[in-house]
Amino acid sequence: MRVVRTVEQLREALEYMRGGGHTPIGFVPTMGYLHDGHASLLRRATEMSGTVVMSIFVNPLQFGPNEDFASYPRDEARDLELAEREGADIVFIPSVEEMYPRPIRTGVSVSSLTNVLCGASRPGHFDGVTTVVSKLFNMVQPDYAFFGLKDAQQVAVLRQMVSDLNMNVQIVACPIVREADGLALSSRNVYLSEEERLQALVLSRSLRAAREAVEEGSAKTAEEIRQLLASIISSSPLAVIDYAEILTFPDLEPLADDSILAQADGEIIMALAVKFGKTRLIDNIVFTPKEVAAIV
Amino acid sequence: MRVVRTVEQLREALEYMRGGGHTPIGFVPTMGYLHDGHASLLRRATEMSGTVVMSIFVNPLQFGPNEDFASYPRDEARDLELAEREGADIVFIPSVEEMYPRPIRTGVSVSSLTNVLCGASRPGHFDGVTTVVSKLFNMVQPDYAFFGLKDAQQVAVLRQMVSDLNMNVQIVACPIVREADGLALSSRNVYLSEEERLQALVLSRSLRAAREAVEEGSAKTAEEIRQLLASIISSSPLAVIDYAEILTFPDLEPLADDSILAQADGEIIMALAVKFGKTRLIDNIVFTPKEVAAIV
Repeated sequence: MRVVRTVEQLREALEYMRGGGHTPIGFVPTMGYLHDGHASLLRRATEMSGTVVMSIFVNPLQFGPNEDFASYPRDEARDLELAEREGADIVFIPSVEEMYPRPIRTGVSVSSLTNVLCGASRPGHFDGVTTVVSKLFNMVQPDYAFFGLKDAQQVAVLRQMVSDLNMNVQIVACPIVREADGLALSSRNVYLSEEERLQALVLSRSLRAAREAVEEGSAKTAEEIRQLLASIISSSPLAVIDYAEILTFPDLEPLADDSILAQADGEIIMALAVKFGKTRLIDNIVFTPKEVAAIV
Repeated sequence: MRVVRTVEQLREALEYMRGGGHTPIGFVPTMGYLHDGHASLLRRATEMSGTVVMSIFVNPLQFGPNEDFASYPRDEARDLELAEREGADIVFIPSVEEMYPRPIRTGVSVSSLTNVLCGASRPGHFDGVTTVVSKLFNMVQPDYAFFGLKDAQQVAVLRQMVSDLNMNVQIVACPIVREADGLALSSRNVYLSEEERLQALVLSRSLRAAREAVEEGSAKTAEEIRQLLASIISSSPLAVIDYAEILTFPDLEPLADDSILAQADGEIIMALAVKFGKTRLIDNIVFTPKEVAAIV
């Protein structure tokens, strides 16, 4: 495994791999502090690629002024061990100066899809994501890029970008990885106190309950589901709901209050963002209510 | 020469050329209605490239609602003759539906550089340019892309975009091509009446006079040059000035009224946009006043 810290070294390392026929190139962009969710992306990437590139970069552009850029957890030594163990060939760890050597004046942004969920709660966040991912794609020129579905909106936004701009890369979405008790893995889980960690289980529990309610027919409309999610989450006294939404996927069109889920065309997403103390957690489930109804 | 009309055909044609070792790829994006300015870009491209790709696409995204998208001149048969004669290997002529199969939600935009000159007069114009050029670059994946300096601001904006987003392409800027009497070649010159065509010579004449005034020292400050340009252009009764500006190049920072040109660091641009009837023409000159002063 080769660790590179400049764009020039990265391009040299890639040229060497391409010259040796080690294609296709699979790319796993991360912000580091790796966990088993990232490991699952690396494993998928090694299955599909001749060369696996992982990047570790906490991107200031995608953090708001009152967010946790400075305190975002970092542990390079541990990250490199995991990357090595899971089969990364090249790990790219640029400095902020390497990524932004002068003030950046160019932005890539996706409209519409970014007006809801985390896009509404975190203004500018997705512009930062699409801009840095565009840069990384141009540096790595991957055939495949792997992203976790915990950030389902990010997957939808990046697929829109890739399609709209004719980028030569396929976005591969990988399932959410959870702890045994249901908590979705996140680098930010490390912020949680023991009590917060316990109460945070309400996210996955409420999503499971809501899905079951749709399947059993005990909740039929979007509004009934929103209320069910909110009432379950509110049973945890430390939980402060940012959003508990239900939308079409991947177009992220909000479903009207009285729309019947079993009549929705295609997939829907139930998505949550909930704060516990200073820590904001997200979770979601994407499924096709029609198919479920047909099976029941 | 191969003519292709879909992205898929384009990628196939390029794969074939790359497989045969006909690299590097040189790319000349145009809106068609080709003239000798475009021919000069093709000649430069053939000198530097193993494969020359020209695109012909009148991009609706870069026209304002009251601009000349619908009436923009088109002559595909004549364009293909010129492209063949000047050495194009692949000509890509997509339809609007091929370029925008569904409403585009992703935009690439450059700030700051686009707030002046044509960016101020034509809101959204450069967003349309940077977005379509990003798409074309992703389709063609050229090593070099050739643009004329008549659109000097476009060159500056695209260089900024390429640098900021780490695109793997070098922007090659080619000199303005002029008629014997000085008129800069433009597809829009065809709109001019005989009288307008005659009066339009004031653009190049005023730029030459202003440069001479700087060289001789008869005009020293930015404000003196702006006044000189405006007074010469206004001597043509049909001319309606959109702008007559002097800025740094390629950063396009306006020069303060009292700034002494001979003390400017690096290059400056004198740039004009002038309407004759319904036709808006642009012209410019980029030079280094210091060097000129040193030679005199």
